[in-house]
Amino acid sequence: MEIINRVPRMMSVARELRASGQRIGLVPTMGALHEGHLSLMSQAREMCDKVIASVFVNPAQFGPDEDFERYPRDLARDAELAFTRGVDFIFAPTAEDLYPAGFSTYVGVEGLSTKLEGASRPGHFLGVTTIVAKLLNIVHPHFAYFGRKDAQQVIVIKRMARDLNMDVEIVVGPTVREEDGLALSSRNAYLSTDGRKAAIILRRSLERARTLYNAGERDAAKIASAMRSVIEPEPLARIDYIAITDTEHLDPVDPIPTDRPILISMAVFIDTTRLIDNIVLNGAI
Amino acid sequence: MEIINRVPRMMSVARELRASGQRIGLVPTMGALHEGHLSLMSQAREMCDKVIASVFVNPAQFGPDEDFERYPRDLARDAELAFTRGVDFIFAPTAEDLYPAGFSTYVGVEGLSTKLEGASRPGHFLGVTTIVAKLLNIVHPHFAYFGRKDAQQVIVIKRMARDLNMDVEIVVGPTVREEDGLALSSRNAYLSTDGRKAAIILRRSLERARTLYNAGERDAAKIASAMRSVIEPEPLARIDYIAITDTEHLDPVDPIPTDRPILISMAVFIDTTRLIDNIVLNGAI
Repeated sequence: MEIINRVPRMMSVARELRASGQRIGLVPTMGALHEGHLSLMSQAREMCDKVIASVFVNPAQFGPDEDFERYPRDLARDAELAFTRGVDFIFAPTAEDLYPAGFSTYVGVEGLSTKLEGASRPGHFLGVTTIVAKLLNIVHPHFAYFGRKDAQQVIVIKRMARDLNMDVEIVVGPTVREEDGLALSSRNAYLSTDGRKAAIILRRSLERARTLYNAGERDAAKIASAMRSVIEPEPLARIDYIAITDTEHLDPVDPIPTDRPILISMAVFIDTTRLIDNIVLNGAI
Repeated sequence: MEIINRVPRMMSVARELRASGQRIGLVPTMGALHEGHLSLMSQAREMCDKVIASVFVNPAQFGPDEDFERYPRDLARDAELAFTRGVDFIFAPTAEDLYPAGFSTYVGVEGLSTKLEGASRPGHFLGVTTIVAKLLNIVHPHFAYFGRKDAQQVIVIKRMARDLNMDVEIVVGPTVREEDGLALSSRNAYLSTDGRKAAIILRRSLERARTLYNAGERDAAKIASAMRSVIEPEPLARIDYIAITDTEHLDPVDPIPTDRPILISMAVFIDTTRLIDNIVLNGAI
């Protein structure tokens, strides 16, 4: 496994791999790898001849009051973990290399980017789509892998790739969970012991929604209210949003239609740590 | 020569060409080809194994009151002309194919896009950068060719390609002119006989600037004023802007520095036809 830091080197390595007929898989990450990322790498390993994992904490997708400085960074550990999944190259560029002086270009997806996570985190998806467009241009992979836990990110990136005719297939991997149901996230590391215990209510709330839906409930307001009643008794928890939407426009649906995929998504603060989770009914994203 | 209308076909043809080691040149045009476009095709023919010319009148780069409907279209004639320059493929997609229902992604370059042409034509460069990003993704050429007459377009596209790490070299071809100095433009076809005669004042005005600069004048305001005095006596003419700027930020310079490239650019209405022209001092863009 090779660790590549410079953009030109990554471009020339990837160009040669493609020219020699090898199928390239890219797993973009911000490091702090967990089994969610690693399962994407394993999936890429099975589908591709060469697997590249990028590790870059992208300043452009953090808001001014968010946790950019604090976000966990440990490239040596990330590289070791990636190696166990058969990753061939770690691409770990610097911010100076990716955002040189005079940088002024952005890739944006209108509409989708301002809803749900985008409403709570203005500019977040502009940062995401811009960095992903850059990584896709640098590596030009055949497949790029993203986790379903960031459902809106997947939907926004798929739209970008389609709209801009990017020559890549976006592959969506499953949300990986702890035994008690908590979705793996690099931000779980911020939780206190009590917070960690409380954090299972996101998943519980989503399961409550699924149970109601499976029992025939189609009233979105009722389901959202039942979800809230799972969260609200927890003193450490504060709901940012709970949303029941379609997956094409991310617009609220009520009653819940049964003929298309439905995203139930939520963001909840556990103490000061903001966690997200989701489930999809009637299909997949 | 083959005319390709569908995006998937163009992508698969271009992918195979690249995989077989051929160097691809792309000349993006809106059709209504003239010697400016054709000279770019000849240049691509010399540098590349396969030359692709795209012909697409891009609605996204026209303002609501501009000449999108009226813009000249004659694909058969364009194809014949391109054929004489050794073009291998014409890519002539439909708007429905490039902007499918739900299209909502844009590529923008901040700052540069709102100056000069961008100030007079809000949204114009957002349309340009988005379509060029799409064409570059579809064809993935080694080289893409643009004419220096659209100097700001060149500067904006180069910035986009650099910022987004696009794996392409932007090649800039010279402004081609009529014998009397009028820069070739598809919009020259809109001019009346009198308008056509009057239109040479753009070039005359630019030459006046160059003469003054070469004689040692560094006062940008004086040079702009001398340029205006060439245009203003012409009753058919109305100046939109005359600007003396650097080529990196497109910011006004006064006095004119001698140590970096300087763009003198202008837009002038001749009757109702808006024409642009420019020269670059101290180097090139």
